[in-house]
Amino acid sequence: MAEQKKMVEAITPMEEDFAQWYTDIVKKAELMDYSSVRGCMVIEPYGWAIWENIRDYLDARFKELGHENVSMPLFIPESLLNKEKEHVQGFAPEVAWVTTGGSEKLPERLCVRPTSETLFCEHYARVIHSWRDLPKLYNQWCSVVRWEKTTRPFLRSVEFHWQEGHTMHETEEDARAETLRMLDVYADFCEKQLAIPVLRGQKTESEKFAGAVATYTIEAMMHDGKALQSGTSHYFGDGFARAFNVTFQGRDNSLCHPFQTSWGMSTRIIGGIIMTHGDDSGLVLPPAVAPIQVMIVPVAQHKPGVLDKAKEIETRLKQRFRVKTDDSDQSPGWKFAQYEMKGVPLRLEIGPKDIEKNQCVLVRRTDREKVFVPLDNLEDAVAEQLERVRNDMYEKALKNREGKTYEAKSLDEMKEIADSKPGFIRAMWCGDPACEEKLKEVAGVSSRCIPFGHEHEHGACVCCGKPAEKLVYWGKAY
Amino acid sequence: MAEQKKMVEAITPMEEDFAQWYTDIVKKAELMDYSSVRGCMVIEPYGWAIWENIRDYLDARFKELGHENVSMPLFIPESLLNKEKEHVQGFAPEVAWVTTGGSEKLPERLCVRPTSETLFCEHYARVIHSWRDLPKLYNQWCSVVRWEKTTRPFLRSVEFHWQEGHTMHETEEDARAETLRMLDVYADFCEKQLAIPVLRGQKTESEKFAGAVATYTIEAMMHDGKALQSGTSHYFGDGFARAFNVTFQGRDNSLCHPFQTSWGMSTRIIGGIIMTHGDDSGLVLPPAVAPIQVMIVPVAQHKPGVLDKAKEIETRLKQRFRVKTDDSDQSPGWKFAQYEMKGVPLRLEIGPKDIEKNQCVLVRRTDREKVFVPLDNLEDAVAEQLERVRNDMYEKALKNREGKTYEAKSLDEMKEIADSKPGFIRAMWCGDPACEEKLKEVAGVSSRCIPFGHEHEHGACVCCGKPAEKLVYWGKAY
Repeated sequence: MAEQKKMVEAITPMEEDFAQWYTDIVKKAELMDYSSVRGCMVIEPYGWAIWENIRDYLDARFKELGHENVSMPLFIPESLLNKEKEHVQGFAPEVAWVTTGGSEKLPERLCVRPTSETLFCEHYARVIHSWRDLPKLYNQWCSVVRWEKTTRPFLRSVEFHWQEGHTMHETEEDARAETLRMLDVYADFCEKQLAIPVLRGQKTESEKFAGAVATYTIEAMMHDGKALQSGTSHYFGDGFARAFNVTFQGRDNSLCHPFQTSWGMSTRIIGGIIMTHGDDSGLVLPPAVAPIQVMIVPVAQHKPGVLDKAKEIETRLKQRFRVKTDDSDQSPGWKFAQYEMKGVPLRLEIGPKDIEKNQCVLVRRTDREKVFVPLDNLEDAVAEQLERVRNDMYEKALKNREGKTYEAKSLDEMKEIADSKPGFIRAMWCGDPACEEKLKEVAGVSSRCIPFGHEHEHGACVCCGKPAEKLVYWGKAY
Repeated sequence: MAEQKKMVEAITPMEEDFAQWYTDIVKKAELMDYSSVRGCMVIEPYGWAIWENIRDYLDARFKELGHENVSMPLFIPESLLNKEKEHVQGFAPEVAWVTTGGSEKLPERLCVRPTSETLFCEHYARVIHSWRDLPKLYNQWCSVVRWEKTTRPFLRSVEFHWQEGHTMHETEEDARAETLRMLDVYADFCEKQLAIPVLRGQKTESEKFAGAVATYTIEAMMHDGKALQSGTSHYFGDGFARAFNVTFQGRDNSLCHPFQTSWGMSTRIIGGIIMTHGDDSGLVLPPAVAPIQVMIVPVAQHKPGVLDKAKEIETRLKQRFRVKTDDSDQSPGWKFAQYEMKGVPLRLEIGPKDIEKNQCVLVRRTDREKVFVPLDNLEDAVAEQLERVRNDMYEKALKNREGKTYEAKSLDEMKEIADSKPGFIRAMWCGDPACEEKLKEVAGVSSRCIPFGHEHEHGACVCCGKPAEKLVYWGKAY
């Protein structure tokens, strides 16, 4: 127990310093390591395994919906980036430029892709000819680079991993439907798999993606009340298609421009998992993406039969779950603390007395409740407990969000809440960017989204008091 | 049939111009597209799906052997690259340099990783402390950049995708064993899954990896007799560990340097698949990595019941195989040619007469033989035919290699063979780099490898006539 205590003490408590608690977790749970490249991190095996599980789930879902994976170049020539004006204005200030290849200065600078709309458009211009070629539903898994000044592991890094879907459609209607369909894929993934409740809604004009007609977002609330934009989906109209001369022969033989979308989710979501579910004992991982779903800890493992039984259970459970046994010579107490730190959803203890009774003990990471289960039906009991863990995680996160969501009717009220109670603030907005800007200056909050179904309400703008139709969630964000 | 002919005519015959045949295939089979970034390509869905299958197979094999995936930064600071002298000399001339981030000139240039030994070593120095931390068996899937002057799709590109395994071991013996074990993984994969026979052997000093103590290779022969280095595995000794100050406390408490390996296979192997197996009708894909293993082509599909039966068969086969149905309004002849071009291993034809007889027709891509099989046992028949396709591919490739492997006893003989008969030339070598250099100059061949088991023979050097112990395979290479 001394060792267990020692480990727990090694993390800064959340309430004391949330930022330090976060930094402690990413290191102590062995998710990442810093590198000598500013803002670029080493994602260690345990962290990368979480991303692989996220990727495998989303990738299968994308493919079910007809998307195909491709690989675009890592570089974008400066002239290509320059083709769409709003886009280049948004991204040019934050890209890394390759200017030398081998020992030669390049005739044209290449930026390391910050996002790949331009590359996809260039390719689409070559492969789309007829309405029969549409829709094109492409996606790629890769890393991108944005020259951020201040970085934090997973949340904001110079290089980060993501998937970027880029699709082209025959009609505006199809493209708009795709944009929302993919937002729903992200929202369902967050809620059902990651146990993170999210708000679905539209970004305001000033918060949308550079070059997009409309940006949709899912917004999650972290334990500390701050918002995390967790996935975005953009509708582009035919703006990029016009800039890149992507055309197709329509059903009536006329020359048309296709309508475009893009959507992405990144390793940022790992930061979201940490800050939604973690506690003072460490990480708490949603079973769907946990690299180890069940950790078997033999108790009194030197006694005859214990390790054999543990291995037998591991072999059985491996058919359905990601499971490991720790038969190292560390004490059970040390192991308990270690796998709590790593956020393993379920611990399975098995000792001589359990074997006598043909049972084992399951301990949920969420509430540490011990459940004695007969070995005969173990698989179903494990599935049930993992489901319970997920549900408890979701309920706890939802409660946190509900408890930290406030209403404001005036700028003073808004400022008072923002200063004293971190969370989401619901308030009406007239649609004027000047009011949005003022709220940022005065109350320090940005608009997170206009949630679906609240675009046409009746009220008064929280800032200027003029008639307002849109309900907006405001908050401080990562 | 007119359409079919038209498509076949569109590829340059191999015997007429092998290079053009290759270029035609990568485009017409829709594996890749050129981009406006010199030497970087767009890998299209069909090409990327092949790579995903390669990745999934190798990744599972690596994990079985205890390897873990990680992600290292995309960039290497110049000072880090400079730490190991031989390594930097080998790579510095061919890297892309990032010199500007956003609008600021960087205080230190960053190269886009050409390979990641330096990054792994930097990380290993931080996480390896004791012999208990060893071995570290890490791998990453990523793309790397080498500033090649002349590029060809898949074979040599500025950016290419690969996996790079980097491991650290307690003893030289362990590290050497790992180096050879991973070479065997590559060789088995090529031979059993890709149906590409390979020679396993060691590279000469002048052909080894920059900074390695020993480089091992698998060498395949392409249809035109040229060699393709298809995978390499390097033993580093403790040279990098010393340069990067990677140390651990040994079992006897002394401070030690670990012993290191790295090994990689890249998208180059897709070029190898094309040039080993392809023919004048297009690509021929090994069933293990073919995105579509069975293409169902309904015959007289407008007749009642045909499409239903085709779909029913597809549903059945999907349980075990990657299968698709083409029910488009193109003619069967067009479809036959199309999927031959795309190298689909097995075509399944089903028409009204077949349905009457409760059978279908399987046509192998390799020899276009028609096999009538009863529908009752279709799954097993398909498995059997796919296995037959693999075996035929392997035998054909092996025969090509055997038929194009020659022996040379003198420099004149070597030159004569090299000038007139493309292929491998077996010849003894004294070990002097000057002789190796002379063979390159005079006969235009490079040493491909010293095959295992032929390091200690007795003979005379093909170049200088002095006593020679090593048998070497020589050839022209991609």
